[in-house]
Amino acid sequence: MSDIVTAGILVIGDEILSGRTKDKNIGFIAEYLTNIGIDLKEVRVVPDEEVEIIAALDALRHRYTYVFTTGGIGPTHDDITADSIAKAFGVGIDHHPEVVARFKERFQNPGELNEARLRMARIPDGAELIQSATILAPGFKIGNVIVMAGVPSIMQAMMDIVTPKLKSGVRMLSESVRANAREGDIGGPLRAIANAHPDTIIGSYPFQDEDKKPNTNLVVRSRDPEKLNAAMAAVKEMLAGLNLVR
Amino acid sequence: MSDIVTAGILVIGDEILSGRTKDKNIGFIAEYLTNIGIDLKEVRVVPDEEVEIIAALDALRHRYTYVFTTGGIGPTHDDITADSIAKAFGVGIDHHPEVVARFKERFQNPGELNEARLRMARIPDGAELIQSATILAPGFKIGNVIVMAGVPSIMQAMMDIVTPKLKSGVRMLSESVRANAREGDIGGPLRAIANAHPDTIIGSYPFQDEDKKPNTNLVVRSRDPEKLNAAMAAVKEMLAGLNLVR
Repeated sequence: MSDIVTAGILVIGDEILSGRTKDKNIGFIAEYLTNIGIDLKEVRVVPDEEVEIIAALDALRHRYTYVFTTGGIGPTHDDITADSIAKAFGVGIDHHPEVVARFKERFQNPGELNEARLRMARIPDGAELIQSATILAPGFKIGNVIVMAGVPSIMQAMMDIVTPKLKSGVRMLSESVRANAREGDIGGPLRAIANAHPDTIIGSYPFQDEDKKPNTNLVVRSRDPEKLNAAMAAVKEMLAGLNLVR
Repeated sequence: MSDIVTAGILVIGDEILSGRTKDKNIGFIAEYLTNIGIDLKEVRVVPDEEVEIIAALDALRHRYTYVFTTGGIGPTHDDITADSIAKAFGVGIDHHPEVVARFKERFQNPGELNEARLRMARIPDGAELIQSATILAPGFKIGNVIVMAGVPSIMQAMMDIVTPKLKSGVRMLSESVRANAREGDIGGPLRAIANAHPDTIIGSYPFQDEDKKPNTNLVVRSRDPEKLNAAMAAVKEMLAGLNLVR
């Protein structure tokens, strides 16, 4: 198990950029990766254009341990993810015999196993399939890139299938506390705590509480439980001091 | 009015990448920009790290007409957007007198106008404020970059304030039709229509309908209403032919 495993997400689809479809995959994958000890470092959303897909994929795959893509693996002309990824890796792409065999069983009416459907069986050479009995168009893993569907329920099933094949790192631990204070009142002492606890990441997130008053959630993250506890203790001490003053 | 106006979005925040906070801003801004005739071409999400913010900002601002950023303009140590943007533009950053004056009126209790709150008044030199009576920490526009809050309600108010200052292009028109067909059954004829109508963008989006059957929405987009109508007529004719066959 290596210490730190990183990832990028590449969301592919005009419909996300036009606002017609609201992405639900980024948040799901982000939380999923945090839970299995993989650090999500960057997300990009690009249109259904080969040159854009390849440029973003290359930027991400050379930088992070894994890249997860969503979208563009269906049967229509705008589904160009598999071809773009084959091109990025410089490998061929062809109908995968295992997928074609499954399609032949499933689509037995005349004309059903048409060119469009067969397009979903096009898999870059050397890729491993990500599939199950309930998934029609398979995803695949090639190198460090995991290619998944854009439909959230299918993407989620694919995450479950591919996860056992991934290496995971030391999990980032996280603890949060409700400050019962305005963010601007604690910014100074919080900065001092952050400086004194360099192996932790301290985040401050304002929200409006049930009394409609400005409130703040403080989150301390670290891979080291002792360091996390020490920083969180300092945060709680700081907050207790504030409340005494009130 | 120039023909095509483009944009990128830069979402800044560890909390999005950890999955703790689910982004709601990308979808909102995407739809908003489509409605005012600005084409969103790319989105990136980066952590609260100066070098990452600057690299992504520079990539986007040199490529698109506008860049919209969200997040990182609050009072705490992890709010480093304004400083990062000043650095990217190579300009100074200081407390903006107009914002400081407003804060002085608003925070009159002893200790309230502390260093953390004054941090929210730090604005890069030459930037225009994006503010209103209900917005505490202002956003700003510098060059072609629009810097906004991460809290959705505040970001949305800022979009309304900044929009009149933006140039907009010829709006991308869009029409959609429910195919009442499986995506795999229409992929072939749809590709032929897409090829025959090059000045349109035709998208195909599968969904499960109310009878739990696989169904498809087809979307035709174009800046030219006549070309859009011609492509949509071809799509509808294709779908009518399919239904006759059934």
